[in-house]
Amino acid sequence: MNNKSLVHFLQVLSLVLFFVVGTQDSVEGRLISTISKKPHPNDAAAFARWLVSQNYWGVLNTISSDLGGAPFGNVVSFSDGLPNEGSGVPYFYLTTLDPTARNALRDKRSSLAISEYPLGTCGERDPENPACAKITLTGKLVLVDVSTKEAEFAEHALFTKHPEMMDWPEDHNFQIFKLEIEDIFLINWFGGRKPLTVDQYLHTKMNKFAFILSKFI
Amino acid sequence: MNNKSLVHFLQVLSLVLFFVVGTQDSVEGRLISTISKKPHPNDAAAFARWLVSQNYWGVLNTISSDLGGAPFGNVVSFSDGLPNEGSGVPYFYLTTLDPTARNALRDKRSSLAISEYPLGTCGERDPENPACAKITLTGKLVLVDVSTKEAEFAEHALFTKHPEMMDWPEDHNFQIFKLEIEDIFLINWFGGRKPLTVDQYLHTKMNKFAFILSKFI
Repeated sequence: MNNKSLVHFLQVLSLVLFFVVGTQDSVEGRLISTISKKPHPNDAAAFARWLVSQNYWGVLNTISSDLGGAPFGNVVSFSDGLPNEGSGVPYFYLTTLDPTARNALRDKRSSLAISEYPLGTCGERDPENPACAKITLTGKLVLVDVSTKEAEFAEHALFTKHPEMMDWPEDHNFQIFKLEIEDIFLINWFGGRKPLTVDQYLHTKMNKFAFILSKFI
Repeated sequence: MNNKSLVHFLQVLSLVLFFVVGTQDSVEGRLISTISKKPHPNDAAAFARWLVSQNYWGVLNTISSDLGGAPFGNVVSFSDGLPNEGSGVPYFYLTTLDPTARNALRDKRSSLAISEYPLGTCGERDPENPACAKITLTGKLVLVDVSTKEAEFAEHALFTKHPEMMDWPEDHNFQIFKLEIEDIFLINWFGGRKPLTVDQYLHTKMNKFAFILSKFI
């Protein structure tokens, strides 16, 4: 190999290394490259579904009668299905040993707040910058009947996204809950809340290209 | 350099690379090495202060009269001071263009939920695993009087941790709020909620070693 070929070889090698190593930035144990392409902020329904689908956890809020009716936030894992294959409805695996499930059985009013920040796709923006998206789904937190097809779907959705749930202690009596969404508060760019109905959110088509891409990366 | 020296040189080089590159894992744009040492889970007060101090954002919950009194969670940035130099009291920079500040001005009942997960110190654990810590501070969300020394401290705390706040639009009328803590719900290991009073939380000494260490990394 002469000097010119060597230089060319090193140029190609550095490019390959740049793409293989440089883009494999790890965020919360996941590779950014496994996060599918973010929809355009103006496509509110697709964006909201993407945000819910890509995230693994959020804060689930209930009314705490133990704390004078205060709104009680609790960090929980959730799943609406596999990334890009979800239904948009968040499912939870909760035990009444934790106050959130107890609160919900007394008063169903609830919300789930999720941030784009942990996905690593906000760049240098502050978590409260409107261009770093956030969503709050408000509605009723209810038990899913174990004998239904929905319970099967929900269990698969939870266990594939959160495999350790399968081994959580049986005597803790974990049960599947879901949030029946009644209102959607989405901020994903400057200019205030994006208009988005529950019907638009639930019936949007997920980005097919992102879905196909996710099968190969 | 003979073959033996070359092999030795490569061994040393790979070790150096392992420590320089291998440990510089980036979590949400921060290096894990800048996060100070986690206190022992049994030291509930120090652990809670560490969790609040190290985090940049959480979900702030208020009662939404617009949504039938539902608990409304909202992703926000906060600061209790610089990491390891905080007061334990979370301060926020909010505008009444966003529902959370409007809700708080009508009904002060509020909570702030924070997870250890985004710090990258939970290892392979699921965000809902009790060994991946979470804290909920419940109390009253109130405006901080701009003419006080506390407002000066709070502004410095917010602007040093969230520098872009300094440039947020003046016509949005951002104001400083604080959470007056009345109850602390901390899960940081198996075995349920850790007993921890507000007084213990506010008056614990931060880990001095971690504080000194943080000055050098």
